[in-house]
This record gives sequence, structure tokens and C-alpha cells, in this order.
Amino acid sequence: MNYGMIVYMLGWICLFEAMFMALPLMVAVIYQEPAGWAYLMVLVLCAVLGLLLTRRKVKNRKIYGRDGLVIVAFCWIVLSIFGAAPFVISGDIPSFTDALFETISGFTTTGSSILNDVEALSRANLFWRSFTHWIGGMGVLVFILALLPIKAGGAGMYIMRAESPGPRVRKLVPKIKTTAMILYAIYFGMTVLQIILMLLAGTPLFDAMVLSFGSAGTGGFAIKNDGLASYTNLQQAIVTVAMILFGVNFNFYYLLLRRKPRQALACTEVWAYLGIIAASILVITIQVLPRFETVYQAFHHTAFQVSSIITTTGYSTADFNEWNALSKTILVLIMFVGACAGSTGGGIKVSRIIILLKGVRKEVMRVCHPRSIKKVKMDGHSLEHEAVHSVYAFVIIYICIFVVSLLVITLDEKDLVTNFTAVAATINNIGPGLNIVGPAGNFSSFSDLSKFVLMFDMLAGRLELLPLLVLFVPSTWKK
Amino acid sequence: MNYGMIVYMLGWICLFEAMFMALPLMVAVIYQEPAGWAYLMVLVLCAVLGLLLTRRKVKNRKIYGRDGLVIVAFCWIVLSIFGAAPFVISGDIPSFTDALFETISGFTTTGSSILNDVEALSRANLFWRSFTHWIGGMGVLVFILALLPIKAGGAGMYIMRAESPGPRVRKLVPKIKTTAMILYAIYFGMTVLQIILMLLAGTPLFDAMVLSFGSAGTGGFAIKNDGLASYTNLQQAIVTVAMILFGVNFNFYYLLLRRKPRQALACTEVWAYLGIIAASILVITIQVLPRFETVYQAFHHTAFQVSSIITTTGYSTADFNEWNALSKTILVLIMFVGACAGSTGGGIKVSRIIILLKGVRKEVMRVCHPRSIKKVKMDGHSLEHEAVHSVYAFVIIYICIFVVSLLVITLDEKDLVTNFTAVAATINNIGPGLNIVGPAGNFSSFSDLSKFVLMFDMLAGRLELLPLLVLFVPSTWKK
Repeated sequence: MNYGMIVYMLGWICLFEAMFMALPLMVAVIYQEPAGWAYLMVLVLCAVLGLLLTRRKVKNRKIYGRDGLVIVAFCWIVLSIFGAAPFVISGDIPSFTDALFETISGFTTTGSSILNDVEALSRANLFWRSFTHWIGGMGVLVFILALLPIKAGGAGMYIMRAESPGPRVRKLVPKIKTTAMILYAIYFGMTVLQIILMLLAGTPLFDAMVLSFGSAGTGGFAIKNDGLASYTNLQQAIVTVAMILFGVNFNFYYLLLRRKPRQALACTEVWAYLGIIAASILVITIQVLPRFETVYQAFHHTAFQVSSIITTTGYSTADFNEWNALSKTILVLIMFVGACAGSTGGGIKVSRIIILLKGVRKEVMRVCHPRSIKKVKMDGHSLEHEAVHSVYAFVIIYICIFVVSLLVITLDEKDLVTNFTAVAATINNIGPGLNIVGPAGNFSSFSDLSKFVLMFDMLAGRLELLPLLVLFVPSTWKK
Repeated sequence: MNYGMIVYMLGWICLFEAMFMALPLMVAVIYQEPAGWAYLMVLVLCAVLGLLLTRRKVKNRKIYGRDGLVIVAFCWIVLSIFGAAPFVISGDIPSFTDALFETISGFTTTGSSILNDVEALSRANLFWRSFTHWIGGMGVLVFILALLPIKAGGAGMYIMRAESPGPRVRKLVPKIKTTAMILYAIYFGMTVLQIILMLLAGTPLFDAMVLSFGSAGTGGFAIKNDGLASYTNLQQAIVTVAMILFGVNFNFYYLLLRRKPRQALACTEVWAYLGIIAASILVITIQVLPRFETVYQAFHHTAFQVSSIITTTGYSTADFNEWNALSKTILVLIMFVGACAGSTGGGIKVSRIIILLKGVRKEVMRVCHPRSIKKVKMDGHSLEHEAVHSVYAFVIIYICIFVVSLLVITLDEKDLVTNFTAVAATINNIGPGLNIVGPAGNFSSFSDLSKFVLMFDMLAGRLELLPLLVLFVPSTWKK
């Protein structure tokens, strides 16, 4: 374990967090809110700590896969702890556990909240809360990689692989730094575009910004108690389309930018993703027709909810907890599917589902034709046996974490649907679940123990399990 | 596909079904019930059909893995269709769909019922219903293999492998016929022992027999509306112990009979199975203490319910649907764990869970130490990569069937917990679930479509997925 490198990267995380906090500080200044002092304090603290830690020379910059995982895990934990501080200091969220829950929910782009009255928060806090979504969406370490001149044998690749979602993380271009820059450029450009469209649709600038952060990062923190219900149909429609687009594999956009439309359109995952969305919208729209005045309204709200859930954003314009059993069951199922790999969304990811189904088909075929040896193919390339195996293992680890989490939060003696969907909503980085944690509810009534378990689930979900798991392997801590 | 061999085996199934039906016929004669005529009619029909089909000479007796699966699937379906006939003809269950549901539930040792008033059934029907558990428990084709002089290259092994539960079915002795005989001898002996103990505990002979059939096959059909609640503590305790014993891998008993206690005690699966039972009983007993007058009563009923669920029997002495969330969640989780491989129980099987967990540990270790190459070991033997992979694939197929079933039965618009546990209770061959399908409820309110889906799940669960799946592979039907 390369401890020097971990401390060094933690230093950079502190520096970047200080930089990020300049934004809510500006918001506080503009709206003349006292919360600004909280951000100034934490900003200075992070900056000083960051400077101290990054000044140390790191002799051995060589890291391996495991170090990459540990660095990512620690960076996200430290990022969240400092990120939670302003909420506590400003007094908006007095409990540190709650503030940490809200911040981890932000950075992991979950959007699960412990707030009963979100409108009571200061503008600076509302801004920071949504901005954490944007930072967490594409990955904070990917951001650092894009800007920092880190030269080390493969360090960048290991870190990026550990932070980016999906079964196989590929570099778009040979240089990892350039890959990170391209990803962030696309991300930034699409976010700005959404903000402009929201403004054109008559949204106030503040709302346009925070809602776009939440859509871009597939986060889901709203700034009104009724979620996005009080916005106009046009504004909601823009968010719907934006959510779907941010759930697409960013390789797709890169290929389009490189003017390779044929390669872009050959992405099985994107088509499967859009197909699942279309099918879910169709079935649920029919189911909820009696609840809305017009067919368009039923379609509009179904499209919003389905896109919000499958991209793991978690915004809501309607209380789908009141919908019928089939609609709710479909929503719970697409919670697990999640968005595309290489997007800002969470969940198991569509590409993993495809690999699993293809693996299963291969297994059934193997029983029928024992002598045929076929490899699982994806987008024309055949997948290594090892890659398929890793996806299987991912699902099993995922189930294990799910079951243990479920057992612990069940100690709070809430109903089974609440418990099940609370874990599903956090490990898949969605936001709301059903019943007590439904769109009209929140996570405040859970015990501190349950909240910590759900925080673990949010981090495990966002970082795709392994970074957090290696922290529990004893040999990780041997020199 | 060897159609000749399929038809030949179906003939034998008819002959054996005729033989089995002699027992309920005798019961009807003893109790002078008109239902006897129904059994006589079906018995004669089966016998005639069986004689016709088995008289044909089968030139090519060679079968392969896939044929074995198809034979087993068809035999179980035909067995269930004829088995359901007496219920309809005698008028006790007028709907054929319901009668088929009840019969498949019997043969697959599930124990889910569509009967609102089980006490209204004639003695002959009650006997037949429970006797199907006993036949299905160890496998009807294994029974035929034990008695029949089938000589064919490996035919027996393929059939036995397809019908017997567990990730790896091994012959106890080189000859498959002898293996089948040993298994049935142990099974028969233990069942007789339970009947004698139940008689000694003051149970009427009829009750002692049907309850023992249900415990031995880990079925779960009771003959009273309150399940086993009205029996004495001693009688319930005998059933508890019997259920646990029938959930143990029968290899264990074979090794004990062969006086190889050391090898028997080295079975990881048996210890894990007993450990899960002990832990579940401990936690739930503490949870339900306030609901019972004495600590012993809490322990007694918890032990009964836990053993009933994990062995996938499904008897009940208390309505655990009323228990607290943690207790119910643990019960739902052990529904999936199931009993040992090579027992009469259903579920995913403890040995598969062990292999999955060991596979996951290996995967995490591989990330930490990329160069270490370790194989997954079980009971001292290292498992082939292919075997581990099959277990992973099993779980994924299992999840797929689960999700599709859940979606279809959700069309009935029952609550989410009912739907989830209805599928869990049938695919794992348990019997009762929670809410509407809880121990005090039944499956009668589901639509015919849902009932057929749940019948498929019961068969898929009992035959461990593949036999039913290959029926849907088009190439299976090519000559």
C-alpha cells in the first residue's frame, strides 16, 4: 500500500474542495446570507490542509489497482466529511450524521434526503447541495486528473478505473489526462446547454442552475418540498430529456463528436437503455391513465418518473408511491437496472445486465450443445471469460451488501417495502424509494446506525463496490 | 432429441402413477368414500396408457444431457396432470387449474394451496395430496431408476442429474441404480421412523402418516385449517427435528451408514446449514419473546417456523405474518437459502450459497493480489472453474425467472409484499409467503394466468431451472 500517494491525493482533494466551495460562498455573498461564513471557514481550512499535504514530496508515485481503489474510497470519504461541515456550522442541518448523510447523498448523486423542509435551507446550502451532485456525477478524481499534471506509471488509469462506473472502463484516447478532459468538456457543455434551455423556458437562474446540476449528475436533490411538481410542463420536459441524455454512455457522445456516427449507433447498450425506457413508459402510462386528466399528462409524468428512476436521478413530479402495484414494481425493477456504463448514472448498469443475459444464454446453450464453445460478444467484440466472470461476481457482491444492509436497517422496524426500497434507492444512487421513503417522504426517521449503513451503500453503489470492500480486507493494510 | 425414449419414460411414469394411486384408493375404501371411484378411474386410465406406451420397443436408448432434462420436465408435467384428475373428478377441487396448482404444489414439495377449507376434503384426497410430497421429495424418476432395469449408456445418470437438487450430483456408488436404491432406502427408513415417533406421541395413524410424508418430502400440506397449530408441543417438536433432518444432504447419512463419521462430519454444507438455522432461531426467538407466554414457547414456535422455512417445508404452528419486520425479513431471506443439496428441500441450496460466497472472496482477493491464482475449494476438493461459473449462472437465471414471474403476477394488483413472497414461496418450494399468501392465507385469489406462472415457478424451482428452460430453446425440438 502506497500511503504516501494516498496522503498526497487527499491533499489535492482538500485543495479542490476549497476551490469548489468558492461557488456557494459567492452565492451567499450575492444573497447576503450568513451561511457564507461557514463556507469561508471550511474553505480556508481545506486550503491550508491541502497545501500542507501536497507540499510533501512523494518519492514513490507508483500505484497498483488496489491502491487506486483505496485512494478513491478515502478521497470520497474525506470529500464528504468536509463537504458536510458547512451544513452543520451554518445551523441548517444541526446533526453531523444527518449533514454527512445529505452530503454523501449529494456526492454519490443519490439524492436521498433527511430534510423534512428543504425550502428552509439558505440559498448557499441549496446551491452546495446540488453542486455536489455535479462534482460527483463525472467523478471528482477524474476532474483532478483532467487538470493536474500527475505523472506516474499508470496511476491515473487505476484511479479512473476505480472511480468510473461500468464493467470495463476504456480510455477514449491513449492519454488518460486527455480522456478525462474530453469527458469533462462534454459534461460541462451539456450542463451549460441545459441551463440555457431552462432559462429560455422561463426558469429563474438559480433554479435553472441547481436543477441542471442535479440532472447532469443524475443526482436528484430538489429545492422545493414538492420536488419538481410546481414547474411548468415545458421545464419538466427539458429535465426529462436531459436526464435521459446524461444517462447515456459518454463514449457515445465522444464518437459523435469525432464524427463517427456509425460506430456511435452501434452501441448495443444505448439502444437497450432507450428500449427499456420506452417499454417502461408505455406500460406505466397505460396503467396510470385513470389518474390523470389527459393522455398527454399521463405520458408526461410517466416519462419524467421513468427517466428519473432509470437514470438514478430521483427527481419527481408525481407521488408514484400512490400508483398501482404494476407501475411501482416496474419502477423498483428499473431502479436496479440503472443507466449506461460510462454515464453519470448509477445502478447495476445496462451493459452489465446485457452481459449477464448473454452469459445466461450461453450457459443454457452449453447445456443443449455441450460441444459448442461460444464466447459472449458485445458490440462485435468477444468478451474475455474473466470479464464475464467479474460481472457475475459484481452481482453476487451487490446482493450480499444488499442483504446485510437490509437486515441492519430492518432493526428500525419499518415495513418491508420501506426497508427494501430504502436500500435499493441508496445502493443504486436513486434517491426516493416507496412508502416512508417515497417521493413525498424522506430518510429522517431512520436511526443513526441505519443512516450510516445507507451512507455506506450510497458510496458502495457510486464507486461500484470494490473500493469500499478492499478497505475491509486485512491484507490491504500491510506495508 | 430422442423422442422414442421420452415416450417410453412417459409410459413408465403412467404405470408408476397408477401404482401410487392404489394407496389413496385403499384409503377411500377404508373410509368408505366415493372419492375412491375417481382414483380407480384414473388408476385404470394410467395403467392402460402406461402399458401401451411401454410396450413399444425403443431401438435407440442412448440419451444425452439435454434429453435427460426434457424427459424429466415432461414426466413431471404428465405426472401432475394425471395427479390432478382425481381432485376434479371427485368434485373436491372443481376447477382443473386449481387442482393442477395443488398437485404441482404437492409433487414439487411446495405446499402452497388454493384451498380455503382444507378440512372439507375427503380422506383419500388429503392422503393423495400429502403422498405427492413424498413422491416428489426424493424424485419420482430416481424412484423408477431404483426399481427399473433400464440399461442404457448413461441414461440413468443424466436423468438423475436433472431431477436431483444441488450444484453437483454425485453417484454414491458406481452403479446409478444402486445409488437410487440407497437414497430411497434411507428416505423410506427415516419416514417410517418419523411415523412411529408420531404414533408414540399420540398422533392418530392418518395424521402421523400424512404429516410424515409432508416433512420427509419437505412439502408442507397440512390437513387442518390452522396448519399444525392444534397438535401437541411434543408432536410439533418431532416434526421440527424431522424437517431439519430431511433438509440435510443425504450423502451425510450414507457416509454415516457406511461408518465413515469423520467424512460425514467434514461436510461444510451441513455445518453451514445447521449454523444458519441456529442463528436464525436465536435472533427471531429474542424478537418474538413478547408474543409468547414463556421463553420456551417462543423458542419452540420459532424453531418450528425457521426449520419449516429453511427446509422449504412450509408447515406452520404460528402466523409469522404477524411477527415483527426483522423476524419476517430473516424468514424471507432463509426462504432463498433453502436446504442442503442432495436433500429433499428446495431453494437455492446452502452449498450454492457457500460456493457463491467463496467465489466472491476469491474475486476480492484477486483485485488485491492480481497475481495470486487460487481455486475455490469445497470440502477439501478444489472446484472446477466451470462448476463455479454454473452456480453464478444458476443465480442469474433464477433472478430472471423471478423478475418475469413477479411482473406477470403483479397484474393481479395485489400488494408488493404478497407478490414478492408469492413468487419466493413457489420458486423456492416453500408454501406460504406473507400477507395474502401468509400462513393464514392461501393462493386462491390469484388469476388463472398467475396460477400458471406460479406452477411454472414451482416446477422450475424443484427441477432447478434447466429442465424447464430447455423446453423453450428452439434447437431442442430439432431432430
